[in-house]
Amino acid sequence: MSIALFERVSLVTVQRILTAGLPGERIQAADDVDDPASVDIAVVGAPTRGALARLSNLRLIVSLWAGVDHLVADPTRPKDAIITRLVDENLTATMVEAALAHVLAAHRQHDVYRRAQTERTWSPQAQSYAPARTVGVLGLGTLGKAVAQAIARVGFRVIAWNRSPRDVEGITVRSGAEGLPDVLRAADILVNLLALTPETLGILRKETLSLLPQGAVVINLARGAHLVEADLFELLDRGHLRHAVLDVHATEPLPLEHPAWRHPRIDIFPHVAAQTDPESAAHRAVETILAFRASLPLPNAL
Amino acid sequence: MSIALFERVSLVTVQRILTAGLPGERIQAADDVDDPASVDIAVVGAPTRGALARLSNLRLIVSLWAGVDHLVADPTRPKDAIITRLVDENLTATMVEAALAHVLAAHRQHDVYRRAQTERTWSPQAQSYAPARTVGVLGLGTLGKAVAQAIARVGFRVIAWNRSPRDVEGITVRSGAEGLPDVLRAADILVNLLALTPETLGILRKETLSLLPQGAVVINLARGAHLVEADLFELLDRGHLRHAVLDVHATEPLPLEHPAWRHPRIDIFPHVAAQTDPESAAHRAVETILAFRASLPLPNAL
Repeated sequence: MSIALFERVSLVTVQRILTAGLPGERIQAADDVDDPASVDIAVVGAPTRGALARLSNLRLIVSLWAGVDHLVADPTRPKDAIITRLVDENLTATMVEAALAHVLAAHRQHDVYRRAQTERTWSPQAQSYAPARTVGVLGLGTLGKAVAQAIARVGFRVIAWNRSPRDVEGITVRSGAEGLPDVLRAADILVNLLALTPETLGILRKETLSLLPQGAVVINLARGAHLVEADLFELLDRGHLRHAVLDVHATEPLPLEHPAWRHPRIDIFPHVAAQTDPESAAHRAVETILAFRASLPLPNAL
Repeated sequence: MSIALFERVSLVTVQRILTAGLPGERIQAADDVDDPASVDIAVVGAPTRGALARLSNLRLIVSLWAGVDHLVADPTRPKDAIITRLVDENLTATMVEAALAHVLAAHRQHDVYRRAQTERTWSPQAQSYAPARTVGVLGLGTLGKAVAQAIARVGFRVIAWNRSPRDVEGITVRSGAEGLPDVLRAADILVNLLALTPETLGILRKETLSLLPQGAVVINLARGAHLVEADLFELLDRGHLRHAVLDVHATEPLPLEHPAWRHPRIDIFPHVAAQTDPESAAHRAVETILAFRASLPLPNAL
């Protein structure tokens, strides 16, 4: 049996680390696979839809990404293959840094002062302290939990929402559909770190975003499809929301003609909140494959 | 004897708290003082130069600000009066939040992505982790020390400079004129929190800023006069420095015609890193005045 690599950007790095860590395995770039039936493991970033379909004996899909919604949503993938997602300390630390940067920039009104600068207006704003500011965090998975705790450590009040109940020290948690409004009504700054599922698709829409306090800031670090863009625009334009930071987008790269590029109350980031570190991700893939070959329990399997 | 208040913006708040906390004292706004010789205590924000000169019996100047360089530099002030500066937990916490926000924004390249947004360019940048980034902090007074420690807690390497030697846990410290180049050469991000003195005037100039690594970011949260603006412009324009955040300016408010407003690599903030909280500062002033009247040692006297 053999391993196929569906990864373009960091193919050389990933192949090098897998080869070194898995002596005796046959490891091929996906484009070089001549006998698809021999492949039982695929190591993947974002394979094109249908790319895994011809691997008739596939048993394991090792994702180099934390988010695997694109794999789950591909109806052509071999259904018997287990999917494992990347859980990586570097990735988590990077997401924490990204979220802290965006939350502090919102708290310190960087967007307001930037607009003042374009108008050359010297206008000090009333200032709030972190302990007087509530940050709402949607999603308490590995990333959401680490982010919520880091934000609390800096001094903010944090209230988080998770589909199922969770206990996180120092954080107020609400769960279930009935818990979401509590979080939204309290959140001066809202950070989305939900997984994308049929239940969370479009969760940030007019009915939910309208519950945020006047002047709130929305930070989407999860998936573009969580957000109904037209509803966000409407709430920004009528002044209910002050600002939005969009790291993820319904279509990526964001098309040149997309109005979000030019919106004065939206910061566009090109899906960089937590980039996979290819070296680190490849080492995690080696661990997963060794466990799989030894028939040990697989960490982070769906 | 009596107390005169040289403070405009928050006069009502300060007067209310002083009156409540100092029963039996005569407390007047500076404009209302009819007998200058009766004033022995002045509570001041930023009095105009010469405003204290006529108070011939002045013995104590209680500053509502952390920085007192403008008072020290006023040759007309009664020389026998002791100056106390504001040391306030709220002010320190606010400065920490401001510095963290600016350092994380620099670390996460918010300036680079903002420029990309104006050009509608989708261009993910190579990403660094906080532990791979060195932040230099100039000044280890109350504010600088708290900022350096908070930055280290988030995960950055921190190297700090202070005129006299200091020991701060978790922070590499250099001191004296011979120690400054070490800090500058290491600092990917430089935060200035020095007090303004004859020795630190113009300390951020071509010779020093040139020592920063290529692509460094300069964050000035102390005083405009620390920085030689023309030298900063030159280093930004020839690409040695990537970006600058200027919260303080040689002339404040920054004049409408000042080129910094329009510089694409400068973020202008209107001296808001740590605004005095007038309530909190007034309570500290009450404590200082009570200690003075009781002939107790004065905290935070120069």
